[in-house]
Amino acid sequence: MTDPTLGWLRDVEALRQLPQRYARAIDARDIDAVGRLFDPDGSVDGVRGSSKVPAYLDGLRALPATAGSSMHVLGDPLIELEVGGDEAHLDTYAVVYQLRPPESPEADGLLGMRYLDDVARHGDVWLIRYRRSTMLWTRSLPK
Amino acid sequence: MTDPTLGWLRDVEALRQLPQRYARAIDARDIDAVGRLFDPDGSVDGVRGSSKVPAYLDGLRALPATAGSSMHVLGDPLIELEVGGDEAHLDTYAVVYQLRPPESPEADGLLGMRYLDDVARHGDVWLIRYRRSTMLWTRSLPK
Amino acid sequence: MTDPTLGWLRDVEALRQLPQRYARAIDARDIDAVGRLFDPDGSVDGVRGSSKVPAYLDGLRALPATAGSSMHVLGDPLIELEVGGDEAHLDTYAVVYQLRPPESPEADGLLGMRYLDDVARHGDVWLIRYRRSTMLWTRSLPK
Repeated sequence: MTDPTLGWLRDVEALRQLPQRYARAIDARDIDAVGRLFDPDGSVDGVRGSSKVPAYLDGLRALPATAGSSMHVLGDPLIELEVGGDEAHLDTYAVVYQLRPPESPEADGLLGMRYLDDVARHGDVWLIRYRRSTMLWTRSLPK
Repeated sequence: MTDPTLGWLRDVEALRQLPQRYARAIDARDIDAVGRLFDPDGSVDGVRGSSKVPAYLDGLRALPATAGSSMHVLGDPLIELEVGGDEAHLDTYAVVYQLRPPESPEADGLLGMRYLDDVARHGDVWLIRYRRSTMLWTRSLPK
Repeated sequence: MTDPTLGWLRDVEALRQLPQRYARAIDARDIDAVGRLFDPDGSVDGVRGSSKVPAYLDGLRALPATAGSSMHVLGDPLIELEVGGDEAHLDTYAVVYQLRPPESPEADGLLGMRYLDDVARHGDVWLIRYRRSTMLWTRSLPK
């Protein structure tokens, strides 16, 4: 029989990947890949208000492609998980670089974000059931 | 009997949380929470000189509340810990955003920091016994 | 006999250290320490083109010392490793601060980087066999 601490450590590694997978997916504007990280019955509270996950994903798909690109640089999440638990909490700091095309009149943006995620085990994977996404601060980068 | 590598892995996870807990505590100006991460008999060498931990915490409490807010965005620490060891070393890169209120004449600050921590096991927890905090560089963000 | 998951977890910790060791080594301009992270038979695709590892290291050694200092602030790598595997893939986001001396006419640089590393086990250590280093974006920090 496997030591429960071993299962806990494996789960922690899986949980640690979630925010990094989110960063790659959102920066690639691959909204299907973003969706695979969330429980479709879950919800997101964020800068665009409170949404069920399908509406949140639709909102991401509707963002104009001309807005430039982004890079989500994340710190290591604080992970709370009991040994043997099926629910976890993640607390992740992020700095988001919003990069405008050279011809854009808009300045690049720099955002300080914090993601508080309730995550639950679904068979072999962990899915975000509830995300509270808080913009701590925002600044413009000089042109 | 538990495999010693299993205990080592569990310790590494506990150690990894220390810098992230420090970031949340200092950004919330929760100096009691900062204090719970340090050995009260320990010391800190930092930008405000060398102090025993209680004096270091008093110095943090004395910082003027008007100075705005901060966000400590930390990289993953390099963790040195022997299997079975009770002392560890952490080497953590950080970028600190010092955000002034809109009415402040001061520009926002951007600091490159490196924390070198000697950490020791105290029963079930790990505490920072000695921190050497180095400011590698500092810049102002444009208004 | 050791549980293979235990070995996997230990390997993941070793792999996680690689990008952080790279950051310390390159920021200290310790090119020998950079070299110890790479397979000498490997290669690097980067901003200065495609090179075998020895030529890549020679290129780093040839950089002018007057260029100032750097800080490589890295996110947690996404690590792909099969249980029992001897090859891994790392995907690491980084923001590089290129800091010029005060007297320099050049502005400080801010670079968004992504390192995609193929890593292989060599006895007790993991070495980067192939790195694809992509500059996602670059901006200047104001003087």
